Amino acid sequence: MSAIKLPTGFQTAGVACGIKKDNKKDLALIISDPLSDAAGVFTRNLVKGHSLKWTMKKYKSNKIKAIVINSGNANACVGPKGDEDAEKIAEITAKLAGCNKDQVLLGSTGVIGFPLPVEKIESGLKEACSRLSSDNSEDAVRAIMTTDTFPKEVSVDINLSGKKATLYGMAKGSGMIHPNMATMIGVFLTDAFISQEMLQKALERAVNKSFNRISVDGDTSVCDMVIVLANGNAANEKITRENDDFETFAEALEKVSVTLSKMLARDGEGATKLIEIHVKNALDNETAHKITNSIAKSPLVKTAVFGHDANWGRILTAAGYSGAEFDPDLIDIFIGDLQVCKNGVGLSFDENKALEILKKDEVKITVDLKMGSSEDIMWTCDFSFDYVKINSAYRT
Amino acid sequence: MSAIKLPTGFQTAGVACGIKKDNKKDLALIISDPLSDAAGVFTRNLVKGHSLKWTMKKYKSNKIKAIVINSGNANACVGPKGDEDAEKIAEITAKLAGCNKDQVLLGSTGVIGFPLPVEKIESGLKEACSRLSSDNSEDAVRAIMTTDTFPKEVSVDINLSGKKATLYGMAKGSGMIHPNMATMIGVFLTDAFISQEMLQKALERAVNKSFNRISVDGDTSVCDMVIVLANGNAANEKITRENDDFETFAEALEKVSVTLSKMLARDGEGATKLIEIHVKNALDNETAHKITNSIAKSPLVKTAVFGHDANWGRILTAAGYSGAEFDPDLIDIFIGDLQVCKNGVGLSFDENKALEILKKDEVKITVDLKMGSSEDIMWTCDFSFDYVKINSAYRT
Repeated sequence: MSAIKLPTGFQTAGVACGIKKDNKKDLALIISDPLSDAAGVFTRNLVKGHSLKWTMKKYKSNKIKAIVINSGNANACVGPKGDEDAEKIAEITAKLAGCNKDQVLLGSTGVIGFPLPVEKIESGLKEACSRLSSDNSEDAVRAIMTTDTFPKEVSVDINLSGKKATLYGMAKGSGMIHPNMATMIGVFLTDAFISQEMLQKALERAVNKSFNRISVDGDTSVCDMVIVLANGNAANEKITRENDDFETFAEALEKVSVTLSKMLARDGEGATKLIEIHVKNALDNETAHKITNSIAKSPLVKTAVFGHDANWGRILTAAGYSGAEFDPDLIDIFIGDLQVCKNGVGLSFDENKALEILKKDEVKITVDLKMGSSEDIMWTCDFSFDYVKINSAYRT
Repeated sequence: MSAIKLPTGFQTAGVACGIKKDNKKDLALIISDPLSDAAGVFTRNLVKGHSLKWTMKKYKSNKIKAIVINSGNANACVGPKGDEDAEKIAEITAKLAGCNKDQVLLGSTGVIGFPLPVEKIESGLKEACSRLSSDNSEDAVRAIMTTDTFPKEVSVDINLSGKKATLYGMAKGSGMIHPNMATMIGVFLTDAFISQEMLQKALERAVNKSFNRISVDGDTSVCDMVIVLANGNAANEKITRENDDFETFAEALEKVSVTLSKMLARDGEGATKLIEIHVKNALDNETAHKITNSIAKSPLVKTAVFGHDANWGRILTAAGYSGAEFDPDLIDIFIGDLQVCKNGVGLSFDENKALEILKKDEVKITVDLKMGSSEDIMWTCDFSFDYVKINSAYRT
């Protein structure tokens, strides 16, 4: 996962069309040649953005030529006009890309409740078409960013029965991040040859271990989606069942997803560090997840980590109100490799050692329930002054 | 609810015994004469503090002479020594107050994982006994405060079939506040004559409409409790069933509880204002509560209110991921009396009017689902820089 590379047959562009201020990039275009199969996972928020709804209707039953994603405006909660605008943008893109409007997927992220400036997007799409490139994906990644502080993309090569394929992923955060899912858009592109059904299966498996395991602030946005396009260019034997090639592909997708997810958590709004929460030896997976989730959401845990305060009582407290079943008199808690609580009782630990661990830019919290053999891992970030600063005046 | 008055037969004291720094008051003593019946509601956190556990064992089966509450140390997660310390403090108090140790209730709030300084508390209790007073409850209220910025107490007179009784309440917040319940201690005292069973019934009803309807940060502490003592001094006809006197008493208890709860929310850590969230016309109570709860917990809503940003999209988003059933195309949202969203679509409202509403120290958010006739109200506070400041270095 070092040098970023697009799979064969994909081109991208990212331009500034004037939705965001200060001439920042706000419109990404992705073109697939040949057409791709698509799989997707979407927000479970009852309220759904108009661009998202368009994509949910189209991704499964059509071969996909293009993805258009704008930032700066969520195209959400604007009534019938939001749906009409989505359709218009698909039509404009289809005309430019030489395809059917149903072969265009859409994503929008940003502020809720304002109509999209369709004319600006039309001009932007024309410019994007003239800038399509197979080796400058970063422009597109920058164009989907909102409050992200760095672009997030990654690629890996995989070997499918002797044929080389590439898997590329980009993602944006960084507030409203919580399962399932977040103000979070992820796009994966691959030239692997795989059926839509297997692609969907691999994506769901990967998302469950990655994007659904990160939390920034417990809020789930109305525009979240992860899309994967597979154009088959690698000419491997088509993956149509759960064979070795499927495992290779699914594992690569999970690995890329986890890498992007950790980047998202690390870049949570105002975050100064990545926190990994590992609950082990739980009675079952659900118990383990309830506890990782409760700790990952606790503002008291997150502010303590920001302040380098080894306040393990807040970790135990969050476990206690998680609704999970465990014996408080068995629990062990570790901050990094420093044990701070044994059998539910605080240890007198070396505060300097704790401070040293908490000052690092990655902090691992381990909770050992000593009751079973199930585990769960989640990633979150600390809660800083800047989280409040960013979110107290986002819209204005 | 103006001049604060203790009911007849109760005396209180608050002293500084050296648990907190800077000679701040940290030990409260309440004495009941004659002995009281007691009712209580306790944290649902699986982890429970040692003082709390003592009280849970004793309050129902004993007539109560005294309550001792210390701040600065939660007496939680310190192993068997925590239970022994609780018992010791009850014994010391019993000796000083001339009662049985089982007639002493305990509360502790503060940092988790450190043993109580029992000798300091013993000296403090002696001093408190010498300072008992029937007209200086504020000392006791100050002694139970942690990060609270102002003392919270209230009293009302009630008429029970021609006899005057008084109901007094004190409470402390102010972090880890979320149903059910919070780093929250509430003590009610009354001279009304009422059976333990009816007292418990009235308390549970009141708590459900008040302390279980506030949220500061979604964290539920291990030491929360609300206790009510009734010594019968008012000599009214004993309340033993749900008659008119019971209704009078229960309504007064609810009113006092709501007043204290709103004070707690307003004084949430770092809060600059009180936010009231009112969901109406829901299909059922559970739906309404899921939505108030989701909005009350959303850091994005709370930071927006702090920044005077009428970001109603975040309110709708929080409703959408609450798990409640509603039709997003019917929903209306009001900030104060200003409608910002109609039938799920944003209105172009007067931003200056919105700013004026959001600058007040109480902000009301109303969500009208237009689907049924159930409603729910919760209180929370905004999320400020100071929340992060207070909680990033609480322990150290």
